[in-house]
Amino acid sequence: MNKPDYEALMLRALELASLSPEYGINPQVGALLVDDNGKIVAEGWHKGAGTAHAEVDALSKVADGRGLTAIVTLEPCNHTGRTGPCSQALIDAGVKRVVFGTKDPGKNEGGGQHTLEAAGVEVIADVLQDQAKALIRPWLISKTENRPYVVIKWASSLDGRTAAADGTSKWITSAQSRADVHLRRSKSQAIIAGTNTVEIDNAELTARQEDGSSYGSQPLRVVVGNRQLSKDLRVFNDLAETIQLKTHDPKQVLSQLFERGIRQVFVEGGATLESSFIEAGLADEFLIYLAPKLLGGPRTAIADIGVKHISESIDLEVFEMKQLGADLMLRAQKKES
Amino acid sequence: MNKPDYEALMLRALELASLSPEYGINPQVGALLVDDNGKIVAEGWHKGAGTAHAEVDALSKVADGRGLTAIVTLEPCNHTGRTGPCSQALIDAGVKRVVFGTKDPGKNEGGGQHTLEAAGVEVIADVLQDQAKALIRPWLISKTENRPYVVIKWASSLDGRTAAADGTSKWITSAQSRADVHLRRSKSQAIIAGTNTVEIDNAELTARQEDGSSYGSQPLRVVVGNRQLSKDLRVFNDLAETIQLKTHDPKQVLSQLFERGIRQVFVEGGATLESSFIEAGLADEFLIYLAPKLLGGPRTAIADIGVKHISESIDLEVFEMKQLGADLMLRAQKKES
Ligand SMILES: NC(=O)c1ccc[n+]([C@@H]2O[C@H](COP(=O)([O-])OP(=O)(O)OC[C@H]3O[C@@H](n4cnc5c(N)ncnc54)[C@H](OP(=O)(O)O)[C@@H]3O)[C@@H](O)[C@H]2O)c1
Ligand SMILES: NC(=O)c1ccc[n+]([C@@H]2O[C@H](COP(=O)([O-])OP(=O)(O)OC[C@H]3O[C@@H](n4cnc5c(N)ncnc54)[C@H](OP(=O)(O)O)[C@@H]3O)[C@@H](O)[C@H]2O)c1
Repeated sequence: MNKPDYEALMLRALELASLSPEYGINPQVGALLVDDNGKIVAEGWHKGAGTAHAEVDALSKVADGRGLTAIVTLEPCNHTGRTGPCSQALIDAGVKRVVFGTKDPGKNEGGGQHTLEAAGVEVIADVLQDQAKALIRPWLISKTENRPYVVIKWASSLDGRTAAADGTSKWITSAQSRADVHLRRSKSQAIIAGTNTVEIDNAELTARQEDGSSYGSQPLRVVVGNRQLSKDLRVFNDLAETIQLKTHDPKQVLSQLFERGIRQVFVEGGATLESSFIEAGLADEFLIYLAPKLLGGPRTAIADIGVKHISESIDLEVFEMKQLGADLMLRAQKKES
Repeated sequence: MNKPDYEALMLRALELASLSPEYGINPQVGALLVDDNGKIVAEGWHKGAGTAHAEVDALSKVADGRGLTAIVTLEPCNHTGRTGPCSQALIDAGVKRVVFGTKDPGKNEGGGQHTLEAAGVEVIADVLQDQAKALIRPWLISKTENRPYVVIKWASSLDGRTAAADGTSKWITSAQSRADVHLRRSKSQAIIAGTNTVEIDNAELTARQEDGSSYGSQPLRVVVGNRQLSKDLRVFNDLAETIQLKTHDPKQVLSQLFERGIRQVFVEGGATLESSFIEAGLADEFLIYLAPKLLGGPRTAIADIGVKHISESIDLEVFEMKQLGADLMLRAQKKES
């Protein structure tokens, strides 16, 4: 009998985890129950705050958990929240071994490993740890910094412009890129834009499907800036909720949104607003669409971000790159130094 | 007996063609001689002005050409230049069939197909035509427009900046990108830069190997701008020849260089000079290095290029993309409308 391939199984658990709500109060978690041959007996994932955790979801699908191995993307929790602690549930079910992806760095939840081992359950930690960690990064940042996770998005020509000299920009990017933006908006909790973008561009900031209809779930629209805006602007239509925050301080914006329960935001423009988030160190992820065009001129996607000398450059690590029509889509985060 | 796979053989001929000088007075051409089974009997390529054409090079390697098939990337020439016409050489050698990639659009050289057919040689035209055409594009542009082929190069951050606010730029790109630039410089006939780049950056504009030593062949250094420059600038050192052209007109620059026999130029910066070439429609190829960094601020790679409205954007077709260290290298040309 061969030892089961825990990495292959963890990959499947990570796949399941990605079915969890992307930006929730709880992290994305996936779990499997497998027998001694590595055959998958049950699968589970977390379906959102207030529902069963992934391990419990998987356990609910077997009549008898005794002697099985649990594969979980995140260390089982030790803490009684709205649902009971998962380590205890695994012990009670008679699971003999727990293989997890990455330690839970949370203050209350951590420590499941100890509880499991004290009860005689074998624990194998840190399988595909990097991937498991990357998966929960948005949740972790929001949790440890008490602010929403920030995605900075822009769409530009290859020379970094978002519009021609006269301000026209329809369309810089491909239909595929635009569809991708709308899908990501629909999964976001809030979209933030500066007053110029909503006033001059009359941007609607809703998530629309390719046939023009609205997605079922719409993010909160957040307009940032001090000026008084006309209620006739499209951003104030009734397709989604809208608030205006009269401040120029990105930190203020994030703390007010966090208080409202927002755990992730999508910053959509313009250059002034985005640059202020970047300069303040409040840019967790960059989502960049590059169209194979040149525009030149004054309308850069990013303005001044406080980089005086080349040694102060903001160095990124691109973690995803794909072709969308003729465009290139890049996702990146700050390089860890 | 199966019919030989002419496309596969043409691919090999294209490979040989790429061994020819990249930017010569003559185009890059490759040729094969194959027997009825498609077995390669001889290979040839053009080694530069004054030397044998590819077909003649291949013929020189067989004792008897009778009954063979010639695979040539470009329609055999019909014209007596410094060497004799290739169609006649193929007829004289007794070749029974000629398969070529693309028609020679030149005024004198065209027409080889007719001569061959009149002599009873079977001709199969346009095999892998797109690739064969793309290969000779630099030569063709230079020949039909009577000016050098223009490669516009820049290296920027993802937001399109070539330097931090204070002008420092060492190093934006990876060592691999820089090595690639120097290799391409070494294959270029001329490097062009504006007076600011040679004065403020004190750019040397030579082609250096990774150990710091100079490549065997150095392109002509061309400084463009009216001001009087100090002879102490590095661009005037004795590692390569340097000329200054006192004009702001890219057309003037190219015609003067064409008169000196230059058939290709590499435009290296800065933003002002490059933008003037782009705006004048004198940019045949874009070579862009994008580093995973953000800089913001005023130092854009490209300045104003005359695009007022989005409908006037310069649309590109990316024909090569590769990773160089952490950077992305893109090669593109204007999209044909
Ligand atoms: N392609 C894309 O991805 C994309 C997306 C969106 C927009 N855009 C382009 O961006 C252009 C607008 O850019 P923009 O930079 O002018 O406008 P913006 O960032 O949308 O709005 C700037 C305004 O927002 C307020 N504001 C909010 N936070 C601020 C801060 N930290 N610092 C200073 N002001 C702050 C100020 O107005 P108050 O006076 O109201 O305080 C400021 O004038 C649009 O015309 C559009 O073409 C492109
Ligand atoms: N990362 C890269 O790929 C790269 C490469 C090179 C440079 N750079 C950056 O580019 C910066 C320099 O850019 P730049 O735009 O200031 O300088 P530039 O293009 O090198 O030089 C501009 C000067 O060239 C002359 N000139 C030549 N043709 C002209 C035209 N068509 N129109 C107007 N002037 C023309 C003018 O000077 P006269 O008064 O002499 O006529 C003009 O002031 C450097 O500091 C460097 O950081 C980046």
